[in-house]
Amino acid sequence: MKEKIEDIKQGTVTSPQGFLAGAVEAAIKYKGRLDLGLLYSEAPALSAAVFTRSKIKAAPIILSMKNNEKGRARAVVVNSGCANACTGDRGLRDAAEMSALAAKKLGIRADQVMVASTGVIGNVMPMDRIQKGIGKIELLKDGGHKLARAIMTTDTRPKEIAVRVMEQNGHYTIGGIAKGAGMIHPDMATLLSFLTTDARINREFLAKALKAAVEDSFNMLTIDGDTSTNDMVSIMANGQADNDLITAENGRMFREALRSICRYLACCIAADGEGATRLIEVCIESAKSKSQARKVARLIAASALVKSAVHGNDPNWGRVVAVLGRSGADMDEKVLDVYLQGEQVMRAGSPLPFEKNKLSRRMKADQVTIRVCLNIGAGSAVAWGCDLSQEYVTINSDYTT
Amino acid sequence: MKEKIEDIKQGTVTSPQGFLAGAVEAAIKYKGRLDLGLLYSEAPALSAAVFTRSKIKAAPIILSMKNNEKGRARAVVVNSGCANACTGDRGLRDAAEMSALAAKKLGIRADQVMVASTGVIGNVMPMDRIQKGIGKIELLKDGGHKLARAIMTTDTRPKEIAVRVMEQNGHYTIGGIAKGAGMIHPDMATLLSFLTTDARINREFLAKALKAAVEDSFNMLTIDGDTSTNDMVSIMANGQADNDLITAENGRMFREALRSICRYLACCIAADGEGATRLIEVCIESAKSKSQARKVARLIAASALVKSAVHGNDPNWGRVVAVLGRSGADMDEKVLDVYLQGEQVMRAGSPLPFEKNKLSRRMKADQVTIRVCLNIGAGSAVAWGCDLSQEYVTINSDYTT
Repeated sequence: MKEKIEDIKQGTVTSPQGFLAGAVEAAIKYKGRLDLGLLYSEAPALSAAVFTRSKIKAAPIILSMKNNEKGRARAVVVNSGCANACTGDRGLRDAAEMSALAAKKLGIRADQVMVASTGVIGNVMPMDRIQKGIGKIELLKDGGHKLARAIMTTDTRPKEIAVRVMEQNGHYTIGGIAKGAGMIHPDMATLLSFLTTDARINREFLAKALKAAVEDSFNMLTIDGDTSTNDMVSIMANGQADNDLITAENGRMFREALRSICRYLACCIAADGEGATRLIEVCIESAKSKSQARKVARLIAASALVKSAVHGNDPNWGRVVAVLGRSGADMDEKVLDVYLQGEQVMRAGSPLPFEKNKLSRRMKADQVTIRVCLNIGAGSAVAWGCDLSQEYVTINSDYTT
Repeated sequence: MKEKIEDIKQGTVTSPQGFLAGAVEAAIKYKGRLDLGLLYSEAPALSAAVFTRSKIKAAPIILSMKNNEKGRARAVVVNSGCANACTGDRGLRDAAEMSALAAKKLGIRADQVMVASTGVIGNVMPMDRIQKGIGKIELLKDGGHKLARAIMTTDTRPKEIAVRVMEQNGHYTIGGIAKGAGMIHPDMATLLSFLTTDARINREFLAKALKAAVEDSFNMLTIDGDTSTNDMVSIMANGQADNDLITAENGRMFREALRSICRYLACCIAADGEGATRLIEVCIESAKSKSQARKVARLIAASALVKSAVHGNDPNWGRVVAVLGRSGADMDEKVLDVYLQGEQVMRAGSPLPFEKNKLSRRMKADQVTIRVCLNIGAGSAVAWGCDLSQEYVTINSDYTT
């Protein structure tokens, strides 16, 4: 049998069998936009999730971490417009009430509901509107599209995908939605992603596969290693497909498909960064170790100077090297190679001549790729970011007022 | 006797006795601007310096580190417009030739000349123009002002100061000049500072005092802990004053004066960051340790979101807390206090109500102060940065082309 992973046209988080979703306008912060939604598995499901590493965690994160421990969540309730972060005990009670309200509506246990919020830090949740809103949500088979819109904040477009995996173990579907992230994950730019699959799968393997996929995708989004108080990525697997049980032993294709979904959503987030006009991909090769490669890749993708240069189509590769130098990674300047948009600009530590205007024109693309070969080891990594535009500053200099 | 430190009106790096300086237009990158200069002590001098921690060091840094080992430098030759970084063996030869040309002009040994460069990375030094330029430099008693201009790159104004110290040990003068630093130290925003004093001082103490002063000033300039390939701060002490020899035992006033000079120059650099419209001061108090306080202070001052909010007079303190959370520093959210421009906005981890418009108006000042009390220890630190403006992006998106 030929193994393949196929994109589903207009695929979304409700593409896998047995998942429903819906969203409403609850006027949490602004009127006239979807800002409250539910994702639900009709059958009991296994679940896994990863959360922000920030020491200051929003109330819904604290609750969801607890609910995640059992690995049996089958619903997510999520809102935008209010992060419910830095809100003390009241915030914890509000998050618990959100899960209880959703659970009651769905007829499941409250500890099977994950709660996620994104928006301004320090505001308390308008629970009256949340309660009314949850009551009004209509769960639909194609509700993923609405849910993808409801979690948007400064995102300019929804981010959703689903793939059909056809492999030795059988056929199954994985879907997902996500929201950004400005250039940097800020208060209003929490990274949220909700993934679903109808695959039959071992629970520990599901958790491991999610963690690995997130490491190579969302965690490689630029952004000075930034992380918000509310970041969360979760997956539910309801076993409605008829594939053979997927485990660590036979899970290669699942791992690959999940990673490709997460990478796709991560690239969507980067390309839709606040004020962004293009995606930046930073490939680090032959570093001393994978962890060093990861660190360097993220630092370069996060550099305001590199981002500004890309915005202006300026092939100013010295800025890449400057970040490299301060990264703390092991390196030998004498063997460094640097490529910009496929053109080598530095070889063995010395600058190569290139036509500045020509390369500048080639940088006027939707994606700009920066590649650095350190030539001292076997560590490699890819990170994604976006350019830094005047528009970014405009968006972020007048947000709460 | 009353001890005091007095500002000298129009003070500069040549205010201390026995120092001369000069600068010329050498057309290294642009015509019609000062870009090559010399600083010289007529008498033999002790010296100390600190350098970039980047693993990729420009040729002049490599040379100056060597010349600094003996602690006997009595001249600095410096240019703007070309960083002489990533220029391989040729760069090292060019830096050595710069020191030799300056030494010949001054009649001193080449290893007593420190070399500093700032400008675009990856370009080789136009040595013919350097040679002609050095020949034309006229050394003057008030030449510090010209030198302060010659080291400017994207700086909009020169940064210079001198103070007269009157203390138990006698009277002496310390002077200094510096250049920025955009928001982030980039290729064209190397941090350079040259300090002079006529004090009689012990050499080891001079080196220690410089290091300590730099730690609490230039090293607390924002900017994601960024450092360029060319950063350098040096001091020369020629002992022409008649004070009693300053040592670790009696050096309190010298240490204080040197630190205040470095802090003044650091604040000038921050306030003159690329596109900056105001200075941001971040005070961290009662952290677990001084090193944690330093780290948090710098991260907050470097956050693009905090900087954007300050630019827009947006009292969005949640962004400060978000940085805090991801900083890795020890903290207990339940005892956190946060102040913005003197107004408390968070107490014991919970938001305090405040008049948004009123606080926003108070943020329209030359300086915005952010204060965080972690209330878990005795570590404190202050960091400086500047707001992030649309103009920053404009400056940095079109630099080499």
